[in-house]
Amino acid sequence: MRKEKERCEAALRRALEGATVALVSSGDPGVYGMAGLAIELAAARGWDVAIEIVPGISAAQAAAARLGAPLALDYACISLSDLLVPWETIRARLAAVAAVDLVVALYNPRSMRRVAQLEEAVAIFRKHRPGSTPVGVATAVGTEDEHISLTDLEHVLEHDVNMRTVVLIGNSTSRHMGRWFVTPRGYGIEGGMK
Amino acid sequence: MRKEKERCEAALRRALEGATVALVSSGDPGVYGMAGLAIELAAARGWDVAIEIVPGISAAQAAAARLGAPLALDYACISLSDLLVPWETIRARLAAVAAVDLVVALYNPRSMRRVAQLEEAVAIFRKHRPGSTPVGVATAVGTEDEHISLTDLEHVLEHDVNMRTVVLIGNSTSRHMGRWFVTPRGYGIEGGMK
Repeated sequence: MRKEKERCEAALRRALEGATVALVSSGDPGVYGMAGLAIELAAARGWDVAIEIVPGISAAQAAAARLGAPLALDYACISLSDLLVPWETIRARLAAVAAVDLVVALYNPRSMRRVAQLEEAVAIFRKHRPGSTPVGVATAVGTEDEHISLTDLEHVLEHDVNMRTVVLIGNSTSRHMGRWFVTPRGYGIEGGMK
Repeated sequence: MRKEKERCEAALRRALEGATVALVSSGDPGVYGMAGLAIELAAARGWDVAIEIVPGISAAQAAAARLGAPLALDYACISLSDLLVPWETIRARLAAVAAVDLVVALYNPRSMRRVAQLEEAVAIFRKHRPGSTPVGVATAVGTEDEHISLTDLEHVLEHDVNMRTVVLIGNSTSRHMGRWFVTPRGYGIEGGMK
């Protein structure tokens, strides 16, 4: 965390000196990224720096594109990291989202020291959705370490998950469709898998 | 809707004939887009076509980048269109998300024939969040018709909203910060606006 602040501050200082500076985040700098930190720091320091934010592809979207179309309908992004948000708050969000049948993308599902959160999240979703609910596990999407698994709620905990993973849990309409994971938009396509 | 099916089907037929076809969606084809429809149609027709999905910048992200960093923490995307999803389901999702302090991006907030949904959505959020909660209203982002307004829950209904608009509602920590709308990640930046 300290490093993120320092990187932001260094970039802003260079910009104040007149340089054109790019501060690079992986994914979308506006989603669990550094865009807000840069704005906050500039405001807190009283630095009048012109800031432009360039959106990017967030991990959930990159994962979704590899998996099919899991996020085609209403969905939520929730980080399981309790470093900056109390676990009670995160748990309440998981329960609320699970109860109203939203697809969910779980960011930061597990770290070296933090392993119980994903288990608890899966248990919460199991109260509302069957074990056969499609789940995508996508790690380091777009890098040479990329690894994508298509599984379900019952088996997701058997898969390797780390801080570079995003876990996508389908809703009651989501389906495996061949090698794909799709949340149908309800167009009423006739016929089924042939 | 019929046109979307026809476009997908035409693209798939051309691909079946051996052509390399690009089916273009605005935003991210995986978020309220045509990626899932293409997969569904191919599966339903039994067409063995190699499909690759290229993710893009969804309206909420494009809007967020113009507004600051409203989506920096957990958020939900909810469409207010009741064409394919019953309004009761949408309303329950709005209430759940409002109660657990998620930032929300409302897609398809209003159409010619459908004006009450946004009013009801705002009323639901007003039960849980003060009128001063930051709200961004972003229309046709990235086009020559782009129009961005930064307002709040109390005044959002005074703004022009149509089917090309996305409405971003902050959570309890979201703040106006100069000309920006930021949901702070809790790094604990010292100092305030100077």
